[in-house]
Amino acid sequence: MTDVTRLCVGVLGGMGPEATVDFFGKLVAATPATRDGDHLRILIDDDPTVPDRSAGIAGTGPSPAPHLARMARGLVALGAQLLVMPCNGAHAFEADVRAAAPGVPFLSLIEATVAATRARRPDVVRVALLATDGTLASRIYHRAFEAAGVRVSVPDADDQRQVMDAIYAIKRGERGPAAADALRAVAERLASEGAEVVIAACTEVPLVLRDGDVRVHGHNVDVISSTDALVARTIAVALRGAEAR
Amino acid sequence: MTDVTRLCVGVLGGMGPEATVDFFGKLVAATPATRDGDHLRILIDDDPTVPDRSAGIAGTGPSPAPHLARMARGLVALGAQLLVMPCNGAHAFEADVRAAAPGVPFLSLIEATVAATRARRPDVVRVALLATDGTLASRIYHRAFEAAGVRVSVPDADDQRQVMDAIYAIKRGERGPAAADALRAVAERLASEGAEVVIAACTEVPLVLRDGDVRVHGHNVDVISSTDALVARTIAVALRGAEAR
Repeated sequence: MTDVTRLCVGVLGGMGPEATVDFFGKLVAATPATRDGDHLRILIDDDPTVPDRSAGIAGTGPSPAPHLARMARGLVALGAQLLVMPCNGAHAFEADVRAAAPGVPFLSLIEATVAATRARRPDVVRVALLATDGTLASRIYHRAFEAAGVRVSVPDADDQRQVMDAIYAIKRGERGPAAADALRAVAERLASEGAEVVIAACTEVPLVLRDGDVRVHGHNVDVISSTDALVARTIAVALRGAEAR
Repeated sequence: MTDVTRLCVGVLGGMGPEATVDFFGKLVAATPATRDGDHLRILIDDDPTVPDRSAGIAGTGPSPAPHLARMARGLVALGAQLLVMPCNGAHAFEADVRAAAPGVPFLSLIEATVAATRARRPDVVRVALLATDGTLASRIYHRAFEAAGVRVSVPDADDQRQVMDAIYAIKRGERGPAAADALRAVAERLASEGAEVVIAACTEVPLVLRDGDVRVHGHNVDVISSTDALVARTIAVALRGAEAR
C-alpha cells in the first residue's frame, strides 16, 4: 500500500544533465526501500535549454527565471508536491521558482548544504567555495554562511578560471583526472590558507571530486557535496510527508 | 542555439526506479554533446506505484494500463514528443500507451532489442530470454523474435524462479555477486543448450549482468541489454527530430 503521506518530488533539472543524473541516482539509492513501491515518485524535467545561470546573474545573458518558473509550474501540474533544483547557481533565482509554485515547498540546496556543513563540523569558522562565477557573484553562499557565523574563502582570479575550466570539461563529459586534479589543487590552496571545509558548491564538482580527495599537510580536509546535502534533505522531507505541507 | 528538430523524450519510469536511473544515465552519457545545450530535453515520470506488470499480465492483480496511459498523457502535456518505457513487461500494455498519446511516437523497447540482436548477430537462430514471469507469459518477445525467424529459449521452472529471485534482489538494492551469479548460471545453461545470444529482457538484469559475463565451453556468449538497445534507438530518433513526427 502506498504511504499517502509521502510527497512527490519535482526536480528542475538539466543544469547540467550529468548533475541531474547524479542527483536522481543518489536519491533513489538513498531511499529506504525493499521493493519498487517503497520508493518516492520523482518527476524530472531535465531541460538543458535553461539559459546560462552565470550569464543571467552577470547580466550578460537572459535571466533563466521565466524558464525556471515555467518548469516549476509544469512539474506541479503533473503532481509534484515538493520542488528541488540540483543546480547551485540557479538558486540565485529561487524566489522566482517559489513565486511560481505557491503552497508547494521548495527545498533550498544552499540551506541544505550550509546545514550539512554545520552538522559535520559544528565548530567550523571558514569554508572554501568551489562554485561557478555566477554562484560566487550572486553571493548566495556568502549570505547563508555569514548568517551562520561562518566566513567564506573563494579562489583568486587565476584559480577561479581553473575551476570554471574544470566545470566546463565535466559538462563535456570529461571525467578523467585533469578536472579532478585542477579542482583538488584549488581546494588545497584554499585549505592551506585557512579554510577548514571545502564546499562542492556546483553540482558538477562532486562528479569528480569526493570527500577524502583533499589533503593539506597530511591531514584530510572535509569536502561537503551540495548534491548529497540536497539528496538527504529531499528524502527527509518527502518521507515526513504531511509535516512539510 | 537549440536545434528545434530535436524531440523531447518522455520516459514512463519507476519500473523499477534503479532501472530508470540506469536508462537516464546511459541516455545522457550516449548523447553527443560538448555543452549542456547539446543534450536532449528528457521528462521523466519515475512512478514506483505503477501496478505490478507480472500480476497484471497473469490476471492476479489490477492492470497497469490505466496508470500507464495517465503517465503518457501527463508527459505529453508537459511537452514530450516521443515516449519510451524502460520496462520490458510494461510493453504488454504498449497498445494502451499508444492509444493514450495519439500522434506521439512510441519507441518499443522490444522492437529495439530485437533489432539490436539482429544487428549484432544477423545469422542468429536461437536466443535465450532472461525476463520476468510477466514478460514471458505475455509472449511479447516470442512474437517479435519469431516474426524475425528467430527461436526463443526460456529457463525451466526452477531456473525461472532463480531469475525472479535475482530481479527482486536487485530491486531491493542488492547488486552484489549473488544475483549476478544466479543470472549468469541460468544464462549459461540456456546457452549450453543451444541459445547463441542471451537477451537481458528485464531492465533490472543489465544492472548486474553485462556483455562479456556469460561464457560456455570457453567461448563468450553475447548478452544484449534491452536498456542499451532502447537508449540507442531513443537517441537516433530524438536527434533525427522531424523525421520521426
